[in-house]
Amino acid sequence: MASACSTLRKDFGLLVPITVRWGDMDAYGHVNNATFSTYFETARMKFFEWVRVFDYKEGERHAPAIVSATINYRQQVHYPAELEAGIRCIKVGTKSFTLEHFLFRAGADEIVADGTTVIAWVDYAAGKAVPLPEQSKDALSAGMH
Amino acid sequence: MASACSTLRKDFGLLVPITVRWGDMDAYGHVNNATFSTYFETARMKFFEWVRVFDYKEGERHAPAIVSATINYRQQVHYPAELEAGIRCIKVGTKSFTLEHFLFRAGADEIVADGTTVIAWVDYAAGKAVPLPEQSKDALSAGMH
Amino acid sequence: MASACSTLRKDFGLLVPITVRWGDMDAYGHVNNATFSTYFETARMKFFEWVRVFDYKEGERHAPAIVSATINYRQQVHYPAELEAGIRCIKVGTKSFTLEHFLFRAGADEIVADGTTVIAWVDYAAGKAVPLPEQSKDALSAGMH
Amino acid sequence: MASACSTLRKDFGLLVPITVRWGDMDAYGHVNNATFSTYFETARMKFFEWVRVFDYKEGERHAPAIVSATINYRQQVHYPAELEAGIRCIKVGTKSFTLEHFLFRAGADEIVADGTTVIAWVDYAAGKAVPLPEQSKDALSAGMH
Repeated sequence: MASACSTLRKDFGLLVPITVRWGDMDAYGHVNNATFSTYFETARMKFFEWVRVFDYKEGERHAPAIVSATINYRQQVHYPAELEAGIRCIKVGTKSFTLEHFLFRAGADEIVADGTTVIAWVDYAAGKAVPLPEQSKDALSAGMH
Repeated sequence: MASACSTLRKDFGLLVPITVRWGDMDAYGHVNNATFSTYFETARMKFFEWVRVFDYKEGERHAPAIVSATINYRQQVHYPAELEAGIRCIKVGTKSFTLEHFLFRAGADEIVADGTTVIAWVDYAAGKAVPLPEQSKDALSAGMH
Repeated sequence: MASACSTLRKDFGLLVPITVRWGDMDAYGHVNNATFSTYFETARMKFFEWVRVFDYKEGERHAPAIVSATINYRQQVHYPAELEAGIRCIKVGTKSFTLEHFLFRAGADEIVADGTTVIAWVDYAAGKAVPLPEQSKDALSAGMH
Repeated sequence: MASACSTLRKDFGLLVPITVRWGDMDAYGHVNNATFSTYFETARMKFFEWVRVFDYKEGERHAPAIVSATINYRQQVHYPAELEAGIRCIKVGTKSFTLEHFLFRAGADEIVADGTTVIAWVDYAAGKAVPLPEQSKDALSAGMH
């Protein structure tokens, strides 16, 4: 994992454009802290599609579940603003994987936030983590660079 | 900081009731991960009021700003549900402080999530962290037990 | 439908408590207009449960779908605030029904907003409105007074 | 006001692109009804900027406030989707004006929702509606075609 200081947009295979909505702001007049998680989620959904992690689901009820998340808020964001969300996989385990998120000003290597999300592969019917299919692991690994 | 396993509702001087709204759920049919941050925020605002952290603001434009946050998602939450958010200060620094959050099922010592938030005292006009007023430090310390 | 001026909390068989969250406010520092729709939704979900409208579903994929909505914003709402959402059925048709919403200050006959929602009974698989089961009509009619 | 059936994207001087976020969906797996109000708001903020309605504010505390809103939900919307929000002023009064909203599938004259918003010009400090500045009226009228 590169340090935040030196992380650039070109380090990501996938950059997801995010248009800040006026309604993303809270009573402090800046984008609400919870909304950053929504921006990360927006990038994550595109990432899952990009690496086709769902193509190899072994059961109907197998799906990703967030185990933990961290966010560093580096700059305030105000409407109007265009952002780019860089996302990559930084670790693939047996039953879980870790994604790294960086949020940049669009067209600039200016970081407004970064963070990580640990995601388990869960059998929702059984209510427990299950092994990631080998092909999903390969797909996620492909999203590591 | 006590380990999550042994943390109980009685460990918190402030427990904030949270009623889960149907609209808090996402397309997976459970409370969305970003909404947990909103639950934490709801508790944080009550906490600020409880310890009267704003009573000692030295400037109009001095206000808290979130520097970083962590969340551990321990259980899924579905509507309908009643939760209780325990919150306490676990560290007071010169220009920042750390809050610890635990989200319980209402009336039960069953943890659905926990996390931390590091908050800086910021002069928004100048765009930089400033020292916490001594009385705010005392107020926060009072919220530590 | 009684005029807004004379509508009182006692006119509703169901009053749903709503706790305003700090995060419900927008950059204008008051509760966002879209959030009122979420408050109405919160009341609607309780109402559906209260009249047991789902007990008589004739198909797995039959569910309510909002056709249209109106809202009158009568007062600004700021955090902190406790509200009560009155809800009742004012019309039952063959394939749809109309709900009336009133949002009061908790414990007071002070109206902050009111509105209506027209809801169709939809077969989501077929993508079209279907007749309301007779028992659901009866259940909704029971929620009219 | 043209009927919904015949309203086309070319009827609007301003079309605002809206990217549906995964998180806009609710537990029914489609975009939540309250989120349509947020889409309308997104268009409204662009419209205010476009007609420069704020350039002629006579007081610091003069700002628009929503009086009432209507929405017709014509199609369900699911992630992923790109929309275009058409917005125009259909009436300018002394202290208020009416905006008309149409939400289309991007690049197509397929209406997913439409509605209206009545907006008063309010002196927030005094808590009452005040006359629209003449130049704001002219600006809004310019947004009528």
